[in-house]
Amino acid sequence: MTPFKLSEEFLAEIEQLIADQKDTEILALLEEVHYADVAEVINELTKDEATYLIKLLDTVKTSDVLTELDEDIREAILASLSAKEIAEEISELDTDDAADIVAELPKEMVQEVISEIEDKGHAKDIVDLLRYNENSAGGLMAKELVKVNENWNVLTCVKEMRAQAENVRRVHSIYVVDDEGKLKGRLSLKDLLTTSTKTHISEVYIPKVDSVNVNEDPEEVARIMSKYDLEAIPVVDEIGRLVGRITIDDIVDVIKEEAEKDYQMAAGITQDVEGDDSIWKLTRARLPWLIIGMMGGIGAASIINSFQAVMIQYKILLIFVPLIQATAGNVGVQSSAIMVQGLANDTVKGEVVKRLLKEFMLGLINGLVLASIVLLISHFAFNTEYLVSATICIALMSVIIIAALIGTFIPVFLDSRGIDPAVATGPFITTGNDIFGILIYFTIAKIILGF
Amino acid sequence: MTPFKLSEEFLAEIEQLIADQKDTEILALLEEVHYADVAEVINELTKDEATYLIKLLDTVKTSDVLTELDEDIREAILASLSAKEIAEEISELDTDDAADIVAELPKEMVQEVISEIEDKGHAKDIVDLLRYNENSAGGLMAKELVKVNENWNVLTCVKEMRAQAENVRRVHSIYVVDDEGKLKGRLSLKDLLTTSTKTHISEVYIPKVDSVNVNEDPEEVARIMSKYDLEAIPVVDEIGRLVGRITIDDIVDVIKEEAEKDYQMAAGITQDVEGDDSIWKLTRARLPWLIIGMMGGIGAASIINSFQAVMIQYKILLIFVPLIQATAGNVGVQSSAIMVQGLANDTVKGEVVKRLLKEFMLGLINGLVLASIVLLISHFAFNTEYLVSATICIALMSVIIIAALIGTFIPVFLDSRGIDPAVATGPFITTGNDIFGILIYFTIAKIILGF
Repeated sequence: MTPFKLSEEFLAEIEQLIADQKDTEILALLEEVHYADVAEVINELTKDEATYLIKLLDTVKTSDVLTELDEDIREAILASLSAKEIAEEISELDTDDAADIVAELPKEMVQEVISEIEDKGHAKDIVDLLRYNENSAGGLMAKELVKVNENWNVLTCVKEMRAQAENVRRVHSIYVVDDEGKLKGRLSLKDLLTTSTKTHISEVYIPKVDSVNVNEDPEEVARIMSKYDLEAIPVVDEIGRLVGRITIDDIVDVIKEEAEKDYQMAAGITQDVEGDDSIWKLTRARLPWLIIGMMGGIGAASIINSFQAVMIQYKILLIFVPLIQATAGNVGVQSSAIMVQGLANDTVKGEVVKRLLKEFMLGLINGLVLASIVLLISHFAFNTEYLVSATICIALMSVIIIAALIGTFIPVFLDSRGIDPAVATGPFITTGNDIFGILIYFTIAKIILGF
Repeated sequence: MTPFKLSEEFLAEIEQLIADQKDTEILALLEEVHYADVAEVINELTKDEATYLIKLLDTVKTSDVLTELDEDIREAILASLSAKEIAEEISELDTDDAADIVAELPKEMVQEVISEIEDKGHAKDIVDLLRYNENSAGGLMAKELVKVNENWNVLTCVKEMRAQAENVRRVHSIYVVDDEGKLKGRLSLKDLLTTSTKTHISEVYIPKVDSVNVNEDPEEVARIMSKYDLEAIPVVDEIGRLVGRITIDDIVDVIKEEAEKDYQMAAGITQDVEGDDSIWKLTRARLPWLIIGMMGGIGAASIINSFQAVMIQYKILLIFVPLIQATAGNVGVQSSAIMVQGLANDTVKGEVVKRLLKEFMLGLINGLVLASIVLLISHFAFNTEYLVSATICIALMSVIIIAALIGTFIPVFLDSRGIDPAVATGPFITTGNDIFGILIYFTIAKIILGF
């Protein structure tokens, strides 16, 4: 099977067929195409072309396509569908995807769309899911799962399972609950197949089952599922009742989105943006940190300006300002990146003081290496006096050590205050380093050169 | 089930029991503990304590524990085991994990360990897997899978499947092959369970099956599995024969490792390191980019030094050097981060010129906003002459626009040369920006102020 690759020709063909309203041909062309690929095509169409296609294709396919679209495009398409049409799409989806789409609708639409859903059980499940915080296990989970009562025998189980499995896309484990709905354990599909039908459930089910609480952080759920190589995990409420299930494909999305968000945060981009977004959206996401960084530059300018002696007498020190700053910035970012990852992978384990001491040593070693190189270059290439060379080197070493310590400490501090430590890597650290780097540099100069 | 949390007390207890050699108690304590958690404990023990524990615990558990350990610790433990002991561990593992461990062994050990493996079929599979490039689908895949011949009936299928499924941890799909072993399609476990046993395979199997070539890039495999929400994907060789299977848990690891690597690259760290690593290893990973960044600083120093007129006559320009550099750095990093992610998610689609134009506009808008702020501040706070203020603002805007263009272009260029574009974000961009930023600044100053 050659994987689908969206080509210019294919896109042009689709656009032409839509313009000519050649419905039969469009349906034939897209019949074998996976919904994720159809979504990729639609992401490149205009809003009208996209809406045309969604209305044309079968709801079974379009419902999945809608979940895969970029948020902006989905919003635009849904805005041009009636409440009944939206309800039809949602009826085809699993409850987690259905709830996600309903949550995106304007408030006045929600009531209407839900009332138009024919399967009342499905509507009830969606309403239940909407109560949970979006950023929690409850917000990620789906209601579709297969569960059996611990008091049944295997024959009943298999019959029940066959009935329930109709609605469940992937069955990994069959969950075992008691009369109150509390999660007791699990059965694997493989076990069921390889066990005689006369056996009683209580003899075969595995009482040990990993689960997460409905309020758990999605990143923590991802960490658990990844650590134990799970493909699905049951979600329980505060009383221990089985209320939903999270599958690995949703967790893969969580992991990828988290990674992208962290990467963008480290580059000083405040919102989740893509290169395709409007110039306005991109500017809004990028400007804040640019302004903050610029304020750091203004701060540095004031500091330099206040050291008039440097401006007049030791101008040579000024040419090394970029060097001091770049090094402080790079060291700070390296230290904070390592700490941020350590916190994310939970490998720090309260050894913060140990880490700080290590960073001090690292700063010392790296500082010595770099300062030696600078000493040689400043002396031979720039012909600086010994005292000036000494000033630059000592300042460089101090700045490196302090940048390493700050870079290690800040993420820990943010994390302890419940702020995502990943915001510490990037402009946050480099701006602070710009200011204190200059301050340390000139203060040391003042002390050594005596002005 | 309360998730396992490694506490200081637990660790101390284990260490004490190992010191006292209280084997029965250690076994009792760790009996219910998942292998991933045991690995977490061992990561905190000394080499001798770790080896003691590995030799004490049952091979079924320790083999999985070994796969979860940090590479360094695993290497240390394996070095203290005999070839026969290593072979015993490896015999318990799936072929992909087994091959990974054998690949880490010193060359002289490999032959001996393989010869000690009792199950010759298992040994053969491992040897086959070792031929593939580590960084390819072949290097990721396992040989364990369930396959049936297209000419069988369902009854034979289920019997065969039960026999094969003994060795396969998770069965998602049963793959259908022809007499030459070529992949023809798949059957889902769920379908098998809900279909009557008298049906012939050819009537029920799904001929459409996603697969990857044995030489495919792991990142591409991850992208495909994530896009189509797959939990396992069959791997075929150049002729189309089914040779292995990659499961989602391995892809989750690939995605996480890629994300960590990109994040570290953006921070200028050259090797995969953790905060726990030795100071020597951390220094080796961090120093290269620090030296390069420092060289950029030296370059900037030379440039400033060459504009003697600035040094003498327009010293005021020097205090704004940090501002110009910080802004150039931040803009460049933002642009490149967005482009790097666009390339990774395959959303750029050859529209590079369009992106560059967009970045030009963004640079213009952001530049205007920032330059206006700087104009006001430099005039009122620093009392600069009009011409000097104009110089700073025009230089700032030029630097922003050029940084945005370079930041967008460099990742595309690297990608076209087969270099991971993620190396472009971070010190690579900021160092280059340091140099050209200063150059543009003073060149514009020279033009406007006429020296």
